[in-house]
Amino acid sequence: MTEMKKLKVVVIGGGSSYTPELVEGLLARHHELPVSQLWLVDIDAGMEKAKVIADLTKRMIAKTGCNIEVFLTTDRKQALMDADFVCSQFRAGRIEARLRDERIALKYRVIGQETNGLGGFSNACRTIPIALEIAKEMEALCPNAWLLNFTNPSGMVTEALTKYSTIKTVGLCNVPVNMERGAAEMLGVPRDEITMQIAGLNHLVWARKVLHNGQERSREVLEQLVAGNDRMTPKNIPPFRWDEGLLKSLDMVPCAYLRYYYQSRDFLDKEFAASSNKSNRADLVAKVEAELLEIYKDPTLDTKPQLLEERGGAYYSEAACELMNSIYNNKRSIMHVNTRNNGAIQGLPDDCAVEVSSLITSSEIIPLNVEPFETGTLRLIQLMKEFETLTVEAAISGDINLAKRALMLNPIVDSGAHIDEALQETIRENLDFMPKFAHALNQ
Amino acid sequence: MTEMKKLKVVVIGGGSSYTPELVEGLLARHHELPVSQLWLVDIDAGMEKAKVIADLTKRMIAKTGCNIEVFLTTDRKQALMDADFVCSQFRAGRIEARLRDERIALKYRVIGQETNGLGGFSNACRTIPIALEIAKEMEALCPNAWLLNFTNPSGMVTEALTKYSTIKTVGLCNVPVNMERGAAEMLGVPRDEITMQIAGLNHLVWARKVLHNGQERSREVLEQLVAGNDRMTPKNIPPFRWDEGLLKSLDMVPCAYLRYYYQSRDFLDKEFAASSNKSNRADLVAKVEAELLEIYKDPTLDTKPQLLEERGGAYYSEAACELMNSIYNNKRSIMHVNTRNNGAIQGLPDDCAVEVSSLITSSEIIPLNVEPFETGTLRLIQLMKEFETLTVEAAISGDINLAKRALMLNPIVDSGAHIDEALQETIRENLDFMPKFAHALNQ
Amino acid sequence: MTEMKKLKVVVIGGGSSYTPELVEGLLARHHELPVSQLWLVDIDAGMEKAKVIADLTKRMIAKTGCNIEVFLTTDRKQALMDADFVCSQFRAGRIEARLRDERIALKYRVIGQETNGLGGFSNACRTIPIALEIAKEMEALCPNAWLLNFTNPSGMVTEALTKYSTIKTVGLCNVPVNMERGAAEMLGVPRDEITMQIAGLNHLVWARKVLHNGQERSREVLEQLVAGNDRMTPKNIPPFRWDEGLLKSLDMVPCAYLRYYYQSRDFLDKEFAASSNKSNRADLVAKVEAELLEIYKDPTLDTKPQLLEERGGAYYSEAACELMNSIYNNKRSIMHVNTRNNGAIQGLPDDCAVEVSSLITSSEIIPLNVEPFETGTLRLIQLMKEFETLTVEAAISGDINLAKRALMLNPIVDSGAHIDEALQETIRENLDFMPKFAHALNQ
Amino acid sequence: MTEMKKLKVVVIGGGSSYTPELVEGLLARHHELPVSQLWLVDIDAGMEKAKVIADLTKRMIAKTGCNIEVFLTTDRKQALMDADFVCSQFRAGRIEARLRDERIALKYRVIGQETNGLGGFSNACRTIPIALEIAKEMEALCPNAWLLNFTNPSGMVTEALTKYSTIKTVGLCNVPVNMERGAAEMLGVPRDEITMQIAGLNHLVWARKVLHNGQERSREVLEQLVAGNDRMTPKNIPPFRWDEGLLKSLDMVPCAYLRYYYQSRDFLDKEFAASSNKSNRADLVAKVEAELLEIYKDPTLDTKPQLLEERGGAYYSEAACELMNSIYNNKRSIMHVNTRNNGAIQGLPDDCAVEVSSLITSSEIIPLNVEPFETGTLRLIQLMKEFETLTVEAAISGDINLAKRALMLNPIVDSGAHIDEALQETIRENLDFMPKFAHALNQ
Repeated sequence: MTEMKKLKVVVIGGGSSYTPELVEGLLARHHELPVSQLWLVDIDAGMEKAKVIADLTKRMIAKTGCNIEVFLTTDRKQALMDADFVCSQFRAGRIEARLRDERIALKYRVIGQETNGLGGFSNACRTIPIALEIAKEMEALCPNAWLLNFTNPSGMVTEALTKYSTIKTVGLCNVPVNMERGAAEMLGVPRDEITMQIAGLNHLVWARKVLHNGQERSREVLEQLVAGNDRMTPKNIPPFRWDEGLLKSLDMVPCAYLRYYYQSRDFLDKEFAASSNKSNRADLVAKVEAELLEIYKDPTLDTKPQLLEERGGAYYSEAACELMNSIYNNKRSIMHVNTRNNGAIQGLPDDCAVEVSSLITSSEIIPLNVEPFETGTLRLIQLMKEFETLTVEAAISGDINLAKRALMLNPIVDSGAHIDEALQETIRENLDFMPKFAHALNQ
Repeated sequence: MTEMKKLKVVVIGGGSSYTPELVEGLLARHHELPVSQLWLVDIDAGMEKAKVIADLTKRMIAKTGCNIEVFLTTDRKQALMDADFVCSQFRAGRIEARLRDERIALKYRVIGQETNGLGGFSNACRTIPIALEIAKEMEALCPNAWLLNFTNPSGMVTEALTKYSTIKTVGLCNVPVNMERGAAEMLGVPRDEITMQIAGLNHLVWARKVLHNGQERSREVLEQLVAGNDRMTPKNIPPFRWDEGLLKSLDMVPCAYLRYYYQSRDFLDKEFAASSNKSNRADLVAKVEAELLEIYKDPTLDTKPQLLEERGGAYYSEAACELMNSIYNNKRSIMHVNTRNNGAIQGLPDDCAVEVSSLITSSEIIPLNVEPFETGTLRLIQLMKEFETLTVEAAISGDINLAKRALMLNPIVDSGAHIDEALQETIRENLDFMPKFAHALNQ
Repeated sequence: MTEMKKLKVVVIGGGSSYTPELVEGLLARHHELPVSQLWLVDIDAGMEKAKVIADLTKRMIAKTGCNIEVFLTTDRKQALMDADFVCSQFRAGRIEARLRDERIALKYRVIGQETNGLGGFSNACRTIPIALEIAKEMEALCPNAWLLNFTNPSGMVTEALTKYSTIKTVGLCNVPVNMERGAAEMLGVPRDEITMQIAGLNHLVWARKVLHNGQERSREVLEQLVAGNDRMTPKNIPPFRWDEGLLKSLDMVPCAYLRYYYQSRDFLDKEFAASSNKSNRADLVAKVEAELLEIYKDPTLDTKPQLLEERGGAYYSEAACELMNSIYNNKRSIMHVNTRNNGAIQGLPDDCAVEVSSLITSSEIIPLNVEPFETGTLRLIQLMKEFETLTVEAAISGDINLAKRALMLNPIVDSGAHIDEALQETIRENLDFMPKFAHALNQ
Repeated sequence: MTEMKKLKVVVIGGGSSYTPELVEGLLARHHELPVSQLWLVDIDAGMEKAKVIADLTKRMIAKTGCNIEVFLTTDRKQALMDADFVCSQFRAGRIEARLRDERIALKYRVIGQETNGLGGFSNACRTIPIALEIAKEMEALCPNAWLLNFTNPSGMVTEALTKYSTIKTVGLCNVPVNMERGAAEMLGVPRDEITMQIAGLNHLVWARKVLHNGQERSREVLEQLVAGNDRMTPKNIPPFRWDEGLLKSLDMVPCAYLRYYYQSRDFLDKEFAASSNKSNRADLVAKVEAELLEIYKDPTLDTKPQLLEERGGAYYSEAACELMNSIYNNKRSIMHVNTRNNGAIQGLPDDCAVEVSSLITSSEIIPLNVEPFETGTLRLIQLMKEFETLTVEAAISGDINLAKRALMLNPIVDSGAHIDEALQETIRENLDFMPKFAHALNQ
């Protein structure tokens, strides 16, 4: 890339309601990130909604006077040709698949969340084959492009891409930036005076340090969490009071998703309660989605509407734009991303994906070194990483025994005969997305 | 020890119904293991039963004409003075405590087994302080004696002793020898033609190899397990059919207790069912105990009665006698014991206790090197070892947060607010044995 | 520190001819690094020279109109009181000790260089006790100050300080920055477009990547080294043509000092030749020093003279000023420093000192993660680190057997009886600085 | 193998003067190790000598009345067909090659010993391709046979075989058994009351424990070594007084070859002195060989002559026979052998060869677990293992840069331009055995 280069940005799953946020971020950086083409790719079934999104996008661009052409297409290969950045934010099977995952999980009394329990497993098995297909197309059509993955389960998808493709890939999640925002609020200081040192896995991450202008203030943040003043939990996780003794024994700030591990049964009970109230997360998301779409249709709307921040994914796109910027301009900024471990977290394989604060350069992502975790926490990380790695292998191979071993290790899914049944039902209901598992279906 | 040395053997918990088996073993080896004194130590509350046991013991010895004096006492220090071997087989809180553990565990819907779930935790917290007290007395009264620990949870007790005492300690369990016996039956070959290579943790152990006269036959054993021809499961574990796919993906023979991890919910369901039938394991044990005692009282009985083998602990004492013999005569035989890891199992700390096939010498226990476990299995071992290590620390310190973190990591205990309640109830009901936790009781 | 804080900077060994460079750097940053006091500390024997330096310093400051007071003293404690930054650049035993080290080393036919061979050992044993004494004073007088160590052997001194003091310490060396400058020249690009990823130990360091505006160009740099166009070797190392096959097999750029390891005998031969010509490095340094001093005395001189760059230490002070600036202003810039490993380089202990590209924050130094070294290189690093660690322990304890084992491991010092003799002579000739070894002197 | 099986034993290099010792060992075990055929394989150039050996062998067998047929052949494939045990004791290039190695090494002033310095490197490059050729023939002709390797350099040859062949291989060396014999003499106790725990690499091995009837007596052995009462050093190493401080700091008993590392220059000086006296080791060996051959020719001789023990290799064959016996009869005895590491020595790769006390079974060799070495010693082991591994790779690939890096790491070979010259000369003089290096010869 030379400075003159006009950039082509492709969004897989471009019909997502997150796209306006992404566009907002691109416009804000247009002076240093010279995007000239924005390609929104989606599938036939999503075109109606995607059209609404694309139109809003065009209005937003027109308003600023920036010179960015917007293309909406179902032809992924055409879009990928000579791309510079590819943002992956599709959802395999759309919101219906997520609803189905949650329903099956609850039927067998296990956690169905879309990234970590039985739902995460199911989502990974649907999504990873598609993600690898995209990466293969990129190897042919835009081998030097960067792939920015927001598609969930982001940690497993990134690991699959890192291991089985030559495309430069970074996984993104909004959890770390939301933690920084939350900590700033809790400490009553400006957002840009807070930096965190983040380490762990996607949705299983800790702030090892909370630094206010370089001074460590984790202790205060932990105390506020204990006191119930939690500004870090994203909208898509049920709110809980943290356990005081647990937090005191940790000496670092856990992300909200860690309560799935620290308070597993309580979460399951909440999911049951929500389910009987028709208020489970996936239902809620579907409802917000519908409302958003109505708003987006308004032909006078030419900015990102506020309601978007009600989604758990707020600030995802902000992070994605900053990442493109840092790569393109070799800014060597520190961001929190999913990338190849390479020894950053001791006790995990070099080739697995971890979520760590990293130096972003135009040639590579370099994690900051992570001080060794105390063993009690390391064991949890190692276990979930093994679940993730086995799930990735199962998703690619269709090996049902690997799938069972993955779920057996998962600490928020209890083992037993019900897992066989849940697996059968999951495969049967997702067969279009998991053809490799077809052989494992009981007759 | 010189060859002339007459040996003094001490049994802590000597009133146990296992003692006759131990005596049988000592008598069978008397020509090379010159025991001259056998001290049975028990507490006041156990004296009535202990008296019955001691009398049977004397009759057994008298029958053979061996010259072994038997002493029954509540004065542990007197017994330990100048001892050569100390066998620890006491149960802190007796059978009542185990019944209580199982009841509390079921109340909170978690596994209550005496070695690995909430029951294992509770048992460890009761037992470890006493075990260390005994070791401290030994450091003063018989510093060169060996401590052979059969007291459950044997892995955690051995780890505590190895870390916090200078006494040479070996932990024993009958699971590995029962696996060898079972494999011999399943292969239809003589018991002494089978050797296994054992590795893992106590009650979390695999036969990495099943060798018949040196030829590997694991595959056949696994196939028989799949076919339901399981001769390895001890009497104290509910019988189950193993999952075929799981066994095929393992490539080594798991011990029966591993089904607590591989089929966790199924076990919990069984425990519930048994509980409502008044047929939980602890009740059953109490019943067998009572029957045994009646038999032992018969003044004409001068051999070990067959019924003893109905207990899960069969062949424990056989292993103990062989171990004493191998140490005393520097036989350098290979036995399966709990000992300091020292790198035998890669991925675990050097100073933790593991259960591995080891060379028994008169100066030390040397594990056979263990081929690296595949990661999926290693993660389970590492996790449970961390549970064990945290439990040991909690048992010694009375730190309630350590206790919670231990239970949170335990893969067969789900986390959540119910754990706090279960911990409170456990401490309250065991306060005599866990005074260090008193400060943590809610008012 | 608040922004209003006026900073007190202390220079131990302030009479060094490097001080003017340091002052130049402080003046250039005065707008953001508000130094108000500069204390130069030296010993009585160095006062005549130190006076010359201090006077030049004052003239340099006066010329710029900055408001910095300069103090020259032999009272180290007075200087350290309430200091913010302490720069350590003293030489224990002055240039005479270095001359002596080189003479003794050559007498026994081993490398005598001041940081890595017998000379490095001797220098460490003289220097470490003094460095720790300073750190202890700092713990009492300015516990929150940062200690910036340039004193050689910088790696071992930093390790001693990191392990045995609570003072925040960073070790500095000019080798990495000289490599960056050299690479820029060799590639014909501006200095500030080059960044390197540095990893290894002090004077045993490699550029894992040479990035020109983020694009990797190591290969070209290696080719130029092979072609003899070496702009990286500092003035204090004899020039050599690199071995082509070796460089090709490395795939990263070695620092010039690595030729001590890769071409050990050739270096020794050079040292012999130089010695017979009276042109060994220490002699040369003494000559340049004398010339510099004459120049410094010129009362009209009020800038740093050019000749200073003839010294091997050029750009040391530049690095030191930038480091202070980055710490004070929490700039989070990436610099190449000696710091606690903490897992950054896999295969070395967490608590040893390594030289790595690191994020400099106002609260701590965070290494960038280092991709695993290939084993052939790792073994050399591990070996020299063990030499360093044993030397640190020997320097502190006076244990002669540790000293021997350290030297036995050092790959550029061959083992044998001559080492005993060399050790005896080294201790005898340095007894004032190594009193703890007195007991080991043969009668 | 069933007990009825008559065994076929093949000796590669059967014309060696060690063969009579091997035969003596086979005869002594004939009641449990039913050898029916003994095939001696040698090359044309060695046939004259081999004929003498074969005739002596036949006389020895005839004397005992055992029914073992002896075959002498140059047709290796015929010999290997359906073999049960293959003993490899050939010397590539015969004694002349060793003389040449020593001469070249001394010319360039480096250690030329046949297993560890430049001589070891040269020997490995000659020998490994032949060893692998034999293994490939075995894979076709006798895939279930065991390969017992005594061919030097035994560690590197075993590593090559273990990594690049599927044949079950064990490497043997007489150093450990000689250490046990020596310790027994030094302690004045019967040989069979001493057992050692051996760990390290071939010719770089330590007795971690010296046990007399199970009681640790290392301290006494070390004291005798210090006092000069060394009965452990084999005949082929020049005698030296050990350094007292070094031994005290070790806390384990080093093998005699370790003085090459601990007292490198002294050894080199001895080699020079011996060379000028025409008394270097290779010359001496040639002389003893000639004398032995004259004795063997005596048609009345029908036992192994005493002079054989003057060779450094004494007790090699004893160990080989015991090893065959233990494998054949699944004796599960503990022997000291070279085998795949598999984690036995922490800090070395799983797939490298180490020399460790191991359990010998009929299906595999299982190392006893080795307590972690203190880092100072581990670093030396790691370094030499890396030399060995790189040498194996160089020997197989003919990669001259790997060869240089191997030698550069070797702590008893100093680096520099002389190594290039020595390598050139080595390749040129051994070109028949190292054709893969031909491309690297300067014109």
